[in-house]
Amino acid sequence: MAGGALLAVSLGDPAGVGPELIAAAWARREGEDLPPFFVAGGPDLLAEAAARRGITLPVTQIFHPAEALDCFDYSLPVLAGADGYYTPGAPSRAGAELALASLEEACRLTVDGEASGLVTGPIAKARLAEVGFAHPGQTEFVAAACGIAAEDAVMMLAGPQLRTVPLTVHIALSQVPARLTAALIERRARIVAAALERDFGIIRPRLAIAALNPHAGEEGRMGDEEARIITPAIAALQVAGIEATGPHPADALFAPRARATYDAALCMYHDQALIPLKALDFDQGVNVTLGLPVIRTSPDHGTAFAIAGQNRADPGAMIAAIRMAGECAARRMEDE
Amino acid sequence: MAGGALLAVSLGDPAGVGPELIAAAWARREGEDLPPFFVAGGPDLLAEAAARRGITLPVTQIFHPAEALDCFDYSLPVLAGADGYYTPGAPSRAGAELALASLEEACRLTVDGEASGLVTGPIAKARLAEVGFAHPGQTEFVAAACGIAAEDAVMMLAGPQLRTVPLTVHIALSQVPARLTAALIERRARIVAAALERDFGIIRPRLAIAALNPHAGEEGRMGDEEARIITPAIAALQVAGIEATGPHPADALFAPRARATYDAALCMYHDQALIPLKALDFDQGVNVTLGLPVIRTSPDHGTAFAIAGQNRADPGAMIAAIRMAGECAARRMEDE
Repeated sequence: MAGGALLAVSLGDPAGVGPELIAAAWARREGEDLPPFFVAGGPDLLAEAAARRGITLPVTQIFHPAEALDCFDYSLPVLAGADGYYTPGAPSRAGAELALASLEEACRLTVDGEASGLVTGPIAKARLAEVGFAHPGQTEFVAAACGIAAEDAVMMLAGPQLRTVPLTVHIALSQVPARLTAALIERRARIVAAALERDFGIIRPRLAIAALNPHAGEEGRMGDEEARIITPAIAALQVAGIEATGPHPADALFAPRARATYDAALCMYHDQALIPLKALDFDQGVNVTLGLPVIRTSPDHGTAFAIAGQNRADPGAMIAAIRMAGECAARRMEDE
Repeated sequence: MAGGALLAVSLGDPAGVGPELIAAAWARREGEDLPPFFVAGGPDLLAEAAARRGITLPVTQIFHPAEALDCFDYSLPVLAGADGYYTPGAPSRAGAELALASLEEACRLTVDGEASGLVTGPIAKARLAEVGFAHPGQTEFVAAACGIAAEDAVMMLAGPQLRTVPLTVHIALSQVPARLTAALIERRARIVAAALERDFGIIRPRLAIAALNPHAGEEGRMGDEEARIITPAIAALQVAGIEATGPHPADALFAPRARATYDAALCMYHDQALIPLKALDFDQGVNVTLGLPVIRTSPDHGTAFAIAGQNRADPGAMIAAIRMAGECAARRMEDE
């Protein structure tokens, strides 16, 4: 593709905040300096979601991704095809089918190289499962479409002040200690380091590895996972030439001065990674999948059915997700 | 005591940042509008620590707390007695003995009512243990001096943006689930609610109770502690007239809009409470002990031996601890 990145955006659940935030992002494309993007499906629905937000949204139906480049400056390019009624706050089976169709098409076009990056709108996993979606989430779906094992598709949360990677995610806290292994930490850390260099342009990325226990276990007085699992993993990473430090007591790791000492923090469990990210960068958090042959980002929030269609949802995370996907895609294109 | 609060301040380990931060707080007493305080011991040591920081610190040796009120405006009142050499960064047995003597005297004077609140400087627990200190920390020491069971002395971390209470503290993460009981949550929540009303002047304090598992367990799919332990405790608290909500997914609980909906967050483990506090309010966090017959606060940082005596330690938390103790003490005095 000549002339820079072109992103494919999926609608997300059409009863959620996805459509209105895509419209809001397009409306701010100049001030926010966003790369060109197109949406997979939903032309009427997007126009209606925009209108409810008070946004005048000209839509151009396109039949091929490259056509988006010609019209993006003055209208939102939308791939002709699936569409639906706009019923904000009232999710339906038809809406879930549209969300799935949009995700499948946007993903396929990105994997095929017709778009240089994928931005996925927020879905409701339980609703998508009802219409046949067999993956735990969009990350695993995209990984499968790329032929990558789900455990090698690494979720990173990135905000203006912090990047964190949760090494375990949707499991009970009581199961976290048993799930941690040195091999898991090493494998994920290598993927993160490679992606920070390749996609984020960071030379010799610095990885801070969090401890599991308070005060990093205080030399074994409060848990032995640091000595048994985390420290050996860090040693192996250092031998492999990766700039990894830790295990760091997690409470101090996200304080302002500490944040300046690393490019990403690898965290042992979901809330250890998400609490600081959302406390600091709530409306601008981006979920980016590392380790894939394609670029994929997503705003780090859900469908927010409760406030959809009310002009209350903040487009900051959607805008940040589009910008980040564009920047990462541009870096990969430079390298090729 | 007529005319407002008078606080007793303990030195902390004299080789740590305690002495210089006490001096720095006194030097800013007018701009920060601090209540009068005196230090238990260390007159020469305090003057030397101040000098290293470039602070001119006149010291007045006093023999009774009330004398502090006469001289506080123009000099730092220090109880005559124990003193030592200033050896920043080089802790010693003699220093630990001085830290303990200072803590014991400041605590005794507060329990006896000669001071209206206690602010403790940072100590090194392992060093204090070497000179006969038999408590896990200063909180338990003060509780014992007051005749209160250690489990009813509740640690709250308070910063400008957030107050959190960790329900379990210095144990391995793997032991947290087994330690949580509905009775523990209820008992601590009652102490917190009473203290926020009595000492912080908050009418009908709102307590947000955090979940243990990611997404609050998603209806049991990722852990059952929410249904088994936390939800019943919240129900019991509500029946008792306490404004308790939850269990709240912990990742979203510390985002800006969420923080506006409660006065304190009760957290299930150390890092859940400390990560957001230190991420948001690192240099201004105060450790306050709730549930005691006396007021006790402390800056929420350690001895920081590595930077002691170098004019690098930020006095924000010490100043905040002194101000908070003064405000809480003043509220109790109004009530009497």
